[in-house]
Amino acid sequence: MSDADKAMALCAAADALRQDAKDILAANARDCEAGETRGLSTALLDRLRLDPSRLAVIADSVDAVAALPDPVGQEIDRRIAPAGMVLRRVRVPIGVIGIIYESRPNVTIDAAALCVRSGNAVILRGGSEAVHSNRALRGSFARGLASAGMDPAAVQLVPTQDRDAVGAMLAASGGIDLIIPRGGKSLVARVQADARVPVLAHLDGICHTFVHAEADPDTARAIVVNAKLRRTGICGAMETLLIDRDYPDAARLLAALVEGGCEVRGDDMVLELEPRAVSASDEDWDTEYLDAIVSVAFVGGLDGALAHIARHSSGHTDAIITRDATAAARFQAEVDSAIVMVNASSQFADGGEFGLGAEIGIATGRLHARGPVALEGLTTYKWLVEGTGQIRA
Amino acid sequence: MSDADKAMALCAAADALRQDAKDILAANARDCEAGETRGLSTALLDRLRLDPSRLAVIADSVDAVAALPDPVGQEIDRRIAPAGMVLRRVRVPIGVIGIIYESRPNVTIDAAALCVRSGNAVILRGGSEAVHSNRALRGSFARGLASAGMDPAAVQLVPTQDRDAVGAMLAASGGIDLIIPRGGKSLVARVQADARVPVLAHLDGICHTFVHAEADPDTARAIVVNAKLRRTGICGAMETLLIDRDYPDAARLLAALVEGGCEVRGDDMVLELEPRAVSASDEDWDTEYLDAIVSVAFVGGLDGALAHIARHSSGHTDAIITRDATAAARFQAEVDSAIVMVNASSQFADGGEFGLGAEIGIATGRLHARGPVALEGLTTYKWLVEGTGQIRA
Repeated sequence: MSDADKAMALCAAADALRQDAKDILAANARDCEAGETRGLSTALLDRLRLDPSRLAVIADSVDAVAALPDPVGQEIDRRIAPAGMVLRRVRVPIGVIGIIYESRPNVTIDAAALCVRSGNAVILRGGSEAVHSNRALRGSFARGLASAGMDPAAVQLVPTQDRDAVGAMLAASGGIDLIIPRGGKSLVARVQADARVPVLAHLDGICHTFVHAEADPDTARAIVVNAKLRRTGICGAMETLLIDRDYPDAARLLAALVEGGCEVRGDDMVLELEPRAVSASDEDWDTEYLDAIVSVAFVGGLDGALAHIARHSSGHTDAIITRDATAAARFQAEVDSAIVMVNASSQFADGGEFGLGAEIGIATGRLHARGPVALEGLTTYKWLVEGTGQIRA
Repeated sequence: MSDADKAMALCAAADALRQDAKDILAANARDCEAGETRGLSTALLDRLRLDPSRLAVIADSVDAVAALPDPVGQEIDRRIAPAGMVLRRVRVPIGVIGIIYESRPNVTIDAAALCVRSGNAVILRGGSEAVHSNRALRGSFARGLASAGMDPAAVQLVPTQDRDAVGAMLAASGGIDLIIPRGGKSLVARVQADARVPVLAHLDGICHTFVHAEADPDTARAIVVNAKLRRTGICGAMETLLIDRDYPDAARLLAALVEGGCEVRGDDMVLELEPRAVSASDEDWDTEYLDAIVSVAFVGGLDGALAHIARHSSGHTDAIITRDATAAARFQAEVDSAIVMVNASSQFADGGEFGLGAEIGIATGRLHARGPVALEGLTTYKWLVEGTGQIRA
């Protein structure tokens, strides 16, 4: 389908979600009731619950994806072969994307919209707690696509909640081209361990912020508090703070975290400077809290920070705060993570904040796509060779 | 290491190979003798054998790789985030590449040079029949690197011929970032089936050439004969010829193949036009002969060709011969293969012929890199974010 046809199909799907709001909310209410009966936590119930305004946001996000530029057909490069043929690399869809996810029903629509926009078919496997919501959302979305002439089979929902279905997806080499898990660590770990199909994912977001000796104290305090506490549950939240032993304003920095409501787990120097801190154990340096807890270590300058990060980073997002451009450049060159930041909060590690329009996930693997994965990451390319009768000598 | 340092290390490695020629050739002679004793085929012995001129070519190819532009540090794109940070995507090495290959000892050096040029470490696992050659080549190459200040551990050879070593490489998730198998179909199939590490490879090269009704007859004959017969053993060799039922010069096209020494296996219409042809079985359409044999089918126009290719192509290289630009464009849009050619011989499916300088292999998977994989395919990227104190709202 052309760029315009895909965009129109997505707008039709957004309209369908608006028209079907009553049925979708009724289906969601069934899931929420069942979840309450089953004793789901308040946090999980909140993730599961849709209301008219949340559903409107979901439908609007589909329109926003429709408005993004279509990566399919984009020319990556063009060259002339030694024998004279014109060679072009042009983006094409990957094929069939499998999404395995947990309670948030908005993932059903976000993932479907991004896959459709980039010309892929998608097979969705949501959590059992959202089964009615997901069926209603997918049904409405697919009807919208069909009304605009797209095959509704482009967006499929695994019809069973049988756990074997996940195993079948993970083994579907040749049938599914890429699996993207969205959810907690145990889900991602299972997918990574068992998949025979390529996987784009991140397991951990153990993000470090290093406050260099030459950091501006006000900037450092603002960024560190934001990186840790703005939202503690996202993968880009800072989990470990590294402070240069020569940084002069460490006590105020630690106090700001404690006074922001954060538990500080530190080494001896931290305990000395901040009496409200507790002692960190060895495991703290490898722990993603996703909570108002931070591990803090003093390090010997940039070398000490680089050594700590090389050992403990999960390769997601690491940041330096400094006014020293040489230190910043070396940090960016030597830290081997998907995202390496200078003087900014690691909470910006997000496709939307990067201006990519939306993201299907964040990847910390080393192949294909790294960091926030948006439409471009859902494409591959092919080589188009145009000759005038060339034969190889 | 910088671009210049890596290039100088490679030139030093090339010089080392020249200086150590006597020892390398002596080691190779041991392998060749052992191979003769073990009854290796003439073809395998020829692949295994080095002589002064072949070794000189290998050393020169290292200099050629040294002269290629370094992909590391290249900026893929640059944008300003909505919050004002400068975002850049910059190429970085993948990390540790595992190469699992068979008898040709030149792969030892070609692969090592490409990995070193792109900043990767490489773990080489060659075939047992080339064990002495590979040790001598790797030893000389690594000494050359070391003489220019590079850690020789950047290029390692698995010290044992134990088959378990391959299994260990395939399972080395987290230790090896990418496996590239180079060799016959059974090797590639084993690697693809067992690897827990990402793999770049192609299993089959079932390449089609479609002669459209509007093909120029002289062009079609020249390309078809070249695509099939120039070298029959390479993965870009044509294996199936599709002829439009409306193509007027089919008899001469078939005669040219037969007279070039090719066995033609065809459908009824082929047998009618070319009495020297034999009848094709169902398996012929899915067979990579790598020999002077071709399967030939008549198809109903472009639609027929697209349907046949969708069913039987291995996704490597498929070509159309036509003077009709609309047909060519539709063929390029709808054939979902790594390389789609118009009016050129599929034997051009090669990184060198594409002007990439050299190739580490050809990939028919859908992630990361597709078609000929050269230096760029041995890199990934990271996001560099430069802020001025931004915190997320």
